[in-house]
Amino acid sequence: MMLNCDLGEGFGAWTMPVDEQIMVYIDQANIACGFHAGDPLVLQNAIGLAKRHNVAVGAHPSYPDLQGFGRRSMNMAADELKACLLYQISALWGMAKCQGVELAYVKPHGALYNDLMKNAEVRNTVMEAVAEFSEARLPLMIQAHPRYPELQQQANTLGLVLWFEAFVDRRYTDDGYLMSRRLEGAVLSFEQAIGQAVRMLNRQEVVTESGNVLQLPIDTLCVHGDSPDAVGMAAELRKIMTKAKLGQAPSGNTAL
Amino acid sequence: MMLNCDLGEGFGAWTMPVDEQIMVYIDQANIACGFHAGDPLVLQNAIGLAKRHNVAVGAHPSYPDLQGFGRRSMNMAADELKACLLYQISALWGMAKCQGVELAYVKPHGALYNDLMKNAEVRNTVMEAVAEFSEARLPLMIQAHPRYPELQQQANTLGLVLWFEAFVDRRYTDDGYLMSRRLEGAVLSFEQAIGQAVRMLNRQEVVTESGNVLQLPIDTLCVHGDSPDAVGMAAELRKIMTKAKLGQAPSGNTAL
Amino acid sequence: MMLNCDLGEGFGAWTMPVDEQIMVYIDQANIACGFHAGDPLVLQNAIGLAKRHNVAVGAHPSYPDLQGFGRRSMNMAADELKACLLYQISALWGMAKCQGVELAYVKPHGALYNDLMKNAEVRNTVMEAVAEFSEARLPLMIQAHPRYPELQQQANTLGLVLWFEAFVDRRYTDDGYLMSRRLEGAVLSFEQAIGQAVRMLNRQEVVTESGNVLQLPIDTLCVHGDSPDAVGMAAELRKIMTKAKLGQAPSGNTAL
Amino acid sequence: MMLNCDLGEGFGAWTMPVDEQIMVYIDQANIACGFHAGDPLVLQNAIGLAKRHNVAVGAHPSYPDLQGFGRRSMNMAADELKACLLYQISALWGMAKCQGVELAYVKPHGALYNDLMKNAEVRNTVMEAVAEFSEARLPLMIQAHPRYPELQQQANTLGLVLWFEAFVDRRYTDDGYLMSRRLEGAVLSFEQAIGQAVRMLNRQEVVTESGNVLQLPIDTLCVHGDSPDAVGMAAELRKIMTKAKLGQAPSGNTAL
Repeated sequence: MMLNCDLGEGFGAWTMPVDEQIMVYIDQANIACGFHAGDPLVLQNAIGLAKRHNVAVGAHPSYPDLQGFGRRSMNMAADELKACLLYQISALWGMAKCQGVELAYVKPHGALYNDLMKNAEVRNTVMEAVAEFSEARLPLMIQAHPRYPELQQQANTLGLVLWFEAFVDRRYTDDGYLMSRRLEGAVLSFEQAIGQAVRMLNRQEVVTESGNVLQLPIDTLCVHGDSPDAVGMAAELRKIMTKAKLGQAPSGNTAL
Repeated sequence: MMLNCDLGEGFGAWTMPVDEQIMVYIDQANIACGFHAGDPLVLQNAIGLAKRHNVAVGAHPSYPDLQGFGRRSMNMAADELKACLLYQISALWGMAKCQGVELAYVKPHGALYNDLMKNAEVRNTVMEAVAEFSEARLPLMIQAHPRYPELQQQANTLGLVLWFEAFVDRRYTDDGYLMSRRLEGAVLSFEQAIGQAVRMLNRQEVVTESGNVLQLPIDTLCVHGDSPDAVGMAAELRKIMTKAKLGQAPSGNTAL
Repeated sequence: MMLNCDLGEGFGAWTMPVDEQIMVYIDQANIACGFHAGDPLVLQNAIGLAKRHNVAVGAHPSYPDLQGFGRRSMNMAADELKACLLYQISALWGMAKCQGVELAYVKPHGALYNDLMKNAEVRNTVMEAVAEFSEARLPLMIQAHPRYPELQQQANTLGLVLWFEAFVDRRYTDDGYLMSRRLEGAVLSFEQAIGQAVRMLNRQEVVTESGNVLQLPIDTLCVHGDSPDAVGMAAELRKIMTKAKLGQAPSGNTAL
Repeated sequence: MMLNCDLGEGFGAWTMPVDEQIMVYIDQANIACGFHAGDPLVLQNAIGLAKRHNVAVGAHPSYPDLQGFGRRSMNMAADELKACLLYQISALWGMAKCQGVELAYVKPHGALYNDLMKNAEVRNTVMEAVAEFSEARLPLMIQAHPRYPELQQQANTLGLVLWFEAFVDRRYTDDGYLMSRRLEGAVLSFEQAIGQAVRMLNRQEVVTESGNVLQLPIDTLCVHGDSPDAVGMAAELRKIMTKAKLGQAPSGNTAL
């Protein structure tokens, strides 16, 4: 199992200060591609930082929405969305190559990430884009969800590898999505998050808001970089994962 | 000698109508990369069009300035500018790959093109960016100029191939640059342009505003897509070049 | 009854060529405010053109989406959307003042226009923004629709005047909206459009796709500037309206 | 004498944390207008904050350059630049009005601020834009400089009031500009800055890098919000200014 974080999310004069500190603890850096954050210099520096820390680089493409940080759903035509994804993946991939780094995967960002989980058409467009990206067989990182066999089947028709991701610091609803941040109890305390992570690591399961237990195929755990104790959380998770002798490269989704 | 044109210069709902018609006549399409024009869908379509017409695809990167169409000089730090260039080249290169097209060269756009001709620091940054782009040894297309040995020498230190470009429809100043569009006589008539082109093709020289003759190492001729009779001009130039048995792939700058 | 057109929709080097010609025939110019089109210079010129032709100037604000020309729905929080509207209205209003022109009304653009017709929360945000704009009691132009009493009631609670707009060149669905442009028959021919306009002018009604007749409270007719024969259509409508002695300033919605 | 600070410089998800704390100590808030920072919601909140703290609101317009935070000179045509300024001033002015706040002045931002000090053409465009803004006779805040009579004369021909600003935490060159931040010694220590401020307050003069004393007509002192101890600096300056019974509203430039 891996540990990942969204990084390279500054823009121009605006920084997201966590990048350097958290690189020490993670396996995978999801790097913004310029459409929700990540101007070319920010992106270049984030790749360099990942390289120095031997962290895998993933493209973190978004709807084209700097003002909204990619957190606002946009009703894009499929061809527009696909072109926007290919553009962003290409940009990150080429810039990684310039530093001798091979792009390792794609993780959609923000509203696009949520939309693809719930909207089959958006999901199809995203899957096609990643599958059509010609230079590499890049895996697509999406949310670990009880409906994973259906998601996997859709990916299989395109020859696409899925990596399933779980969130350690967020409460899950009974239908396997994340509780909205606006609701009380949606964001777990440090201790709750560690507890949830341990259960995810040991048993590939999560306890929902009403106490149900969901089985999830988890390849990688996400630490939110914008949570106040992101670095501490990452450090603790790394310690736990090391003890558990976890931390190998994911090899497609893990069988339950 | 080749014939090139700037293309893919629409953005969203805004089109530049010339693309399809002029592809018939040209050898090289300089395709906008999203910073002065060319949203991802426009760019994807321009690549597809070039492919169908067997036209070489070049990246046409710019200062980041949609509002100004890349025509306003910007005082960018060298690291910012280099990152912006690598980002744009990467984006176009990856999207071309997705259609099975190999990016063939880089031609800077607008104010950046002019700035690099006159400012050694800007030129160095551009040259370094193109040279460092790791996946290909891409030639850099810049203006054919009497100072070409100096330009070539600077490129040689980076192992960079230069392609020299001349403009058929613009009056040259005595120091080998283009007269500003704002000055009377700067833009040639159709007949004058054809005459200038023939002289460029046959003798690798141009007559300046005051009647001097400049020797220029010309690899490729540019037709401006936004001139009113761009398609007619391209058709006529193609006819002349075909007669002259020209039109081979450029092989570095031609010796005078 | 009035005749209106969306104008000032160029951006930087990209123009929408219709502006000058159509000003001769219309009463109201809906001028882009910079978020879907209309950079400051384009916007300034459009205001000047409207002034010279004695055409009323309306603000035509949009979702923040240049790449999508404001035609893509965006899921914005109410406070974000309201601030974006106030910003755009303010910008146009101040720039009009600088030319001695009083902003006359607000007409939302594109996806925002459609969203507010169908989504009560979006509509409320738009209505609040226009009502809160402190310097003027600006009317809000929205689509004439059979549900107009409900729309009017919502506006009344905010002290907001509504102007109802009908579209001469588009087929209506039975529920009073426009058929999607993607469907065959959605865009009327020149002759059909004139016929529809005459019926709107004389009887405040429209015939839907299945032949039903809808009563609509119409204050103003819209000519789409991007339709191929927009100028001819505007000229013809002006002729018909002049004959019918129409063309007075709207005074809130007309009673049926 | 007044105390001013650049504020409202967040954008979307990116914040500049100083706004709330520093409002307590300052007289004038220079609020970003959306072109280098300050999306509509950020801008609206900054105005509201200024209002609550009874701080005067100034427009802080910029070159159109989010990626560069307005810190990169751009070679804009005079009509483009003027339109961009009028657009930004209008936007801020209207949004201030919506909160019952009257815009009090204009202070250009970043590279534009520096360019206008050294380039008469840019200065003329800025002065014309502020003078032509029709709704108010807004003063223009620029750098206090030994050449102030010449600057004042240029402003007088347009009927424009100038407010002269000095920088407490930056070293001055002998020709009255600021040392580049890239040079050692350019940014003063806290103690040096307080010393410089006291001299500015008491004697309207500054000691340059080589020890010369320049007389400057100072109406307002600027605290840089992005300096690490900006809040502490503002608090200290406020204490000093209160003791000196300074802090009245500026009334045009102070006579030496």
